[in-house]
Amino acid sequence: MPLRAYAHNVMQRCDQLATISQHSNYIDRRYLSVQHKQANELVASWMREANMRVWQDEAGNQWGRYVSSHQNAKSLVIGSHLDTVPNSGKYDGILGVLLPLSYIQYLHDNHISLPYHIDIVGFADEEGTRFGTTLLGSRAVAGTWQDKWASLKDNNEISIATAMRTFGLEINNIHNAAADPDDLLGFLEIHIEQGPVLESKGASVGVVTGIAGAKRFNIEVTGHAGHAGTVPMALRQDALVGSAEMLIAIERLAIQSELVATVGKINSASQAVNVISGHVEFSLDIRSLNNEIRDDCLQQIELELERIAQQRGLVLNIKQSHEADATPCHPEMISKLVKACEQSSMVPHLISSGAGHDAMALAHLCPMGMLFVRCEKGVSHHPEESITTDDVVCTLDVLRSFCEGEAQKLSNTSDLVA
Amino acid sequence: MPLRAYAHNVMQRCDQLATISQHSNYIDRRYLSVQHKQANELVASWMREANMRVWQDEAGNQWGRYVSSHQNAKSLVIGSHLDTVPNSGKYDGILGVLLPLSYIQYLHDNHISLPYHIDIVGFADEEGTRFGTTLLGSRAVAGTWQDKWASLKDNNEISIATAMRTFGLEINNIHNAAADPDDLLGFLEIHIEQGPVLESKGASVGVVTGIAGAKRFNIEVTGHAGHAGTVPMALRQDALVGSAEMLIAIERLAIQSELVATVGKINSASQAVNVISGHVEFSLDIRSLNNEIRDDCLQQIELELERIAQQRGLVLNIKQSHEADATPCHPEMISKLVKACEQSSMVPHLISSGAGHDAMALAHLCPMGMLFVRCEKGVSHHPEESITTDDVVCTLDVLRSFCEGEAQKLSNTSDLVA
Repeated sequence: MPLRAYAHNVMQRCDQLATISQHSNYIDRRYLSVQHKQANELVASWMREANMRVWQDEAGNQWGRYVSSHQNAKSLVIGSHLDTVPNSGKYDGILGVLLPLSYIQYLHDNHISLPYHIDIVGFADEEGTRFGTTLLGSRAVAGTWQDKWASLKDNNEISIATAMRTFGLEINNIHNAAADPDDLLGFLEIHIEQGPVLESKGASVGVVTGIAGAKRFNIEVTGHAGHAGTVPMALRQDALVGSAEMLIAIERLAIQSELVATVGKINSASQAVNVISGHVEFSLDIRSLNNEIRDDCLQQIELELERIAQQRGLVLNIKQSHEADATPCHPEMISKLVKACEQSSMVPHLISSGAGHDAMALAHLCPMGMLFVRCEKGVSHHPEESITTDDVVCTLDVLRSFCEGEAQKLSNTSDLVA
Repeated sequence: MPLRAYAHNVMQRCDQLATISQHSNYIDRRYLSVQHKQANELVASWMREANMRVWQDEAGNQWGRYVSSHQNAKSLVIGSHLDTVPNSGKYDGILGVLLPLSYIQYLHDNHISLPYHIDIVGFADEEGTRFGTTLLGSRAVAGTWQDKWASLKDNNEISIATAMRTFGLEINNIHNAAADPDDLLGFLEIHIEQGPVLESKGASVGVVTGIAGAKRFNIEVTGHAGHAGTVPMALRQDALVGSAEMLIAIERLAIQSELVATVGKINSASQAVNVISGHVEFSLDIRSLNNEIRDDCLQQIELELERIAQQRGLVLNIKQSHEADATPCHPEMISKLVKACEQSSMVPHLISSGAGHDAMALAHLCPMGMLFVRCEKGVSHHPEESITTDDVVCTLDVLRSFCEGEAQKLSNTSDLVA
């Protein structure tokens, strides 16, 4: 069978997995739910079809090993997450499990054995929709699970510890889910881009250079409320027009620094047509692959916002609400994936990730790399999330080139055995 | 007694009237309420003290006439409104009834008679808080009451017609409240400025040149929602940053056209920190004393907003929600009030009104003029509304000069008798 048949298989299985949902009108599959268990079981059955050895770890992650022909081989881990946000699409996370799984089926069908294990993993909780904390599954594997998370509760006041027991897991064993870095060659995550860059370049796949670090702020602008008819323009301290000038400044400085900055939320105290706004709150989310560039840009933004506030007689209050440093992909993984693209006759497009991924957690454990797959209009976390079978074919081909490259390299080195 | 004693009287009566409220924690006095009746009765008692002939008209407006010594004299009507918004101050409207009433007391105490009647009127509904339509009291007097208003309902589903009957009025007689313009010399309204202009000029009173005409719009900006981390700045169609640029343009064009334009309300569809805004709605309120200047400015605003939308790949939708033309004050009233200021040794500050007033309705009936009194920081419709006794003294003095000027003029003309 050609790779295209396996790509069709990937698409069909994504459709099938999408039917397992805790909501009848849309896809919604959260950590430690009945649907989580059903999804794991379905994926495990597909793993068995590919002759994989399957198990579920102590965090509820689903694993399958395509066992190497070599004794004491190390593992290449490939995977992503099986949980979803409410009203999600069919590919975010899922594709990164089912695409490599179909590649394993291809290896099995063609009686290809490798000098290393391939472990496919479906992480149990990346989105954090149920308990409010993200990357729970991959952090357990990375050995960075924090014990305090046991008491985190969902909307029904059920703690993670309780939910685990209901699911059939024991929280006290959670640290057993941690992988041993000495057993691992590396971690590869395949994920839809969730942005429009590959589409705008006409590219099927992209090699990710790193995952941006984000800082978030809540910004308050206080002016003076007043009557829309009676206060001349020159005597106003309009918090909303002042905030508007700040938004424009943020956009300008983000473009200059070649990063992304977003004001997603805005609230003006005045909700009357005829009242000058006396108070505005807005959010700022700023991301860069380079923490230094991000922080330099932030410093410029703060100076500029302060200048605008002073000029307009407004009081500015900036509070940080979130901070995560950038996670670069491993340089060797990047160069291997670039070579794999070339091997598969594709232009290797380098791209950064603005969204977070399980790969961020795994980067603490072993060399980490990522491939992005083009998605239509950059839409994700939405039923309209869409990819093409052609792009899945291309990605399968790059994955094959990558895994063959690893095999060749290992045949020449001592990395072969643990 | 010097005028200062009468000014103290005005301040005390404003305090006393403020205790008549349908809410125990703040001032709230609406049309056709029990408190409306109580306020009318209290004001009527003060009118009687000044030897005025008192009556309540068919719309619930409270009147008192300081009867002229001349037979068949015409009337100068002086007044404002006695109703309030919820959580209002003590002076908006009220001052325009109680200040001239104390002047009448001064006339009576000093045995001064005039060659014309002075009719003090406390209009029953200017704010429109109960039935949603403003200037009901003054429109009834102006003869511009519309019969369809009878069925307007309050929040408790009580119609104006029913509320009138409960109050002791008969809606079918409402047109009897209309005054005959042939009986009138003119209408003068004294009102707190509700803006910071007089304060910024260090002036106690201002002569109003006219009441601005307002147009209001609801403006929708549609872009494309997206992930804050994954969509590069150059590929965004951010409805919120686009709207911010529009707000800045509106401010710039308003300043150029020397009028006021206000965005009071803004709502962004995205209320998440990490989502690029795909849809924003904001209001626009634009006012000028000159309808042509206002409409020219609006045309420029529309062109500029359209240009910004096109440049950013946004869709713009502008819908008008309100229109009122400007109401100029009568030129003769303006020049008489300017002379009265000079007579009282005050610099005559000309000022426009951005807010609506009962005087707008009365302008349809007879020559209309207005005096503004300085209020602290321009605050109105709020418990912190504040004026000084000194400014009330000055205003009483200007009113005295104005009324004496009218008397002198009438002694030389045939306007004396109807």
